[in-house]
Amino acid sequence: MPELVHIGVMKKLINSPQDVVLEELEGMEAAHGDRLRINYDPVFIARKDAPIKGKVGLVSGGGSGHEPMHGGYVGKGMLDAACPGQVFTSPTPDQMFEASKAVNGGAGIVHIVKNYTGDVMNFDLAKEMLQTEGIAVESVLTDDDVAVENSLYTAGRRGVGLTVLMEKLLGAAAEQRISLAEIKKLGDLIRSSGRSMGMALTSCTVPHAGKPSFELPEDEIELGIGIHGEPGRHRVKMATADEITEQLMEPILTDLPFKRGDAVLMFVNGMGGTPLIELYIVYRKAAAIAKAHGLKVVRNLVGSYITSLEMAGTSITLLHMNDCLCELWDAPVNTPALRWGI
Amino acid sequence: MPELVHIGVMKKLINSPQDVVLEELEGMEAAHGDRLRINYDPVFIARKDAPIKGKVGLVSGGGSGHEPMHGGYVGKGMLDAACPGQVFTSPTPDQMFEASKAVNGGAGIVHIVKNYTGDVMNFDLAKEMLQTEGIAVESVLTDDDVAVENSLYTAGRRGVGLTVLMEKLLGAAAEQRISLAEIKKLGDLIRSSGRSMGMALTSCTVPHAGKPSFELPEDEIELGIGIHGEPGRHRVKMATADEITEQLMEPILTDLPFKRGDAVLMFVNGMGGTPLIELYIVYRKAAAIAKAHGLKVVRNLVGSYITSLEMAGTSITLLHMNDCLCELWDAPVNTPALRWGI
Repeated sequence: MPELVHIGVMKKLINSPQDVVLEELEGMEAAHGDRLRINYDPVFIARKDAPIKGKVGLVSGGGSGHEPMHGGYVGKGMLDAACPGQVFTSPTPDQMFEASKAVNGGAGIVHIVKNYTGDVMNFDLAKEMLQTEGIAVESVLTDDDVAVENSLYTAGRRGVGLTVLMEKLLGAAAEQRISLAEIKKLGDLIRSSGRSMGMALTSCTVPHAGKPSFELPEDEIELGIGIHGEPGRHRVKMATADEITEQLMEPILTDLPFKRGDAVLMFVNGMGGTPLIELYIVYRKAAAIAKAHGLKVVRNLVGSYITSLEMAGTSITLLHMNDCLCELWDAPVNTPALRWGI
Repeated sequence: MPELVHIGVMKKLINSPQDVVLEELEGMEAAHGDRLRINYDPVFIARKDAPIKGKVGLVSGGGSGHEPMHGGYVGKGMLDAACPGQVFTSPTPDQMFEASKAVNGGAGIVHIVKNYTGDVMNFDLAKEMLQTEGIAVESVLTDDDVAVENSLYTAGRRGVGLTVLMEKLLGAAAEQRISLAEIKKLGDLIRSSGRSMGMALTSCTVPHAGKPSFELPEDEIELGIGIHGEPGRHRVKMATADEITEQLMEPILTDLPFKRGDAVLMFVNGMGGTPLIELYIVYRKAAAIAKAHGLKVVRNLVGSYITSLEMAGTSITLLHMNDCLCELWDAPVNTPALRWGI
């Protein structure tokens, strides 16, 4: 039996905080190396069959700790490449630059960027570098979190759950060889059509910090929390799943707004440490609220798809749907974390 | 804002402990009612298109709290029906009886049973009831956990991760209209070809108990834990992911044994509260150990597929594979939790 090492009060399946992302990528390569290529310097994950001639290349990225986003969404029908930063830390422009070049099939590149200051700045720099090389690049932003107007790492609203849906829908569009300009237009439409809000029951611990990102009393929860533990709207005493769901749905419904008769995709997401059994209890109430509001839920997604390490909690995303978006949603996808039809 | 109710120190997205399973099923019906039918008295989840004439009907079940198992595996290419008990409590014989009758397409029924005393006893009773009505029934057991020989709720070894693989593989076989006798034979082969072991970093809280199932000191982990928190082999001080993975792989490799040149499916499972980023770190080491051992990992699965509520931890399952099993693994499946090819 090897010597046992005590790595502090952090109970995580890791070897050392500084190797978490590298070793995760080595694990992804071991598991999915038949379909994905891992580039280690600079770090990015790409489709093994990229670049695909004549197809717009979709590239996303952001801090790690939100798995399966984004690396788990690389594959046919979704992203061409993803750039993982360190945990809760933006990736660098050179990662985005090299990833974009690696998947450039000559039809241009779309960057899908969550609205955090570091991500936006670095993707902007990468875009300039790519344009200097004559590569056409468009950016699509997600800023769907209705909880707060500005936040710890963000000017404007934060990009959260809608990002997963954006990557699926634009991925399907790119697979159909839709042009760069059209994908940009579709991305902007999706951006303006979706809203989210989340909450936390517990905090999470960034490995290199070694202690919880914030303290949450045993009998309190935080509504409107960000995916990095950024402050939300307010802390309240522990409540029932139905009450929590009401308090997430109400700000989403009124913000856009979503109106009687609208068709929507409803996405109930787990923050990482929440069991699926609880997400279905949340979905049950969210679906009832949507029905009472006159919405038609035409598609849905339930599971932990954009997480905050081991945080317990949930977020809800609603997206206006139409026939075109339903068709893109149903299109085949083959990634480690989202797969159907292939 | 509704009145906030303090439901104790349990931080769970639930309304009341006694309604957890019922409300989860209502959520599943709201989300997947196009494909699944929920029967509420007695409780079972069935394919909406069942019974399918001439196809063997596959029925499984067990205590809730292990989601997505089993309800999340009902659908084309996997289970015809699943019977959820209360959390960590066996379902009753009448659930199994009614579920089996509901999906009986005339080619017989196979019960997939994890080796826990209550599950085995109740499935045996249901089998007798079905046989009295002239329905042919076979049972396939899983008892793949190498950790301990007998356990809190088990005579013999516990059935754990192999159950997920069994349900996928037999589901694919049944879809090909393979006969009852052949599916029974295949199930027994799979049973004898797979081994698992798990570990916990933290405990979990059964809703109606309201307190953790067991206490685990802040700097200790438990190796060989069961999926209901049953005692494992031993508690040790917190260790690195690599050390933990070694201590899970070694007993698995030597038990069957798995020998140089063998083809295997490697399944790294999360216990519910473990982020995917950590599961890939475990997979990385497990794959390296398998390679050093001379094994060929021909298929894999990484994610939280058989859980223990919000327990943090992991389990590893290895299954001997051959061309026939690979073909069954790759066959289309369309369930809420496992889907490809459709």
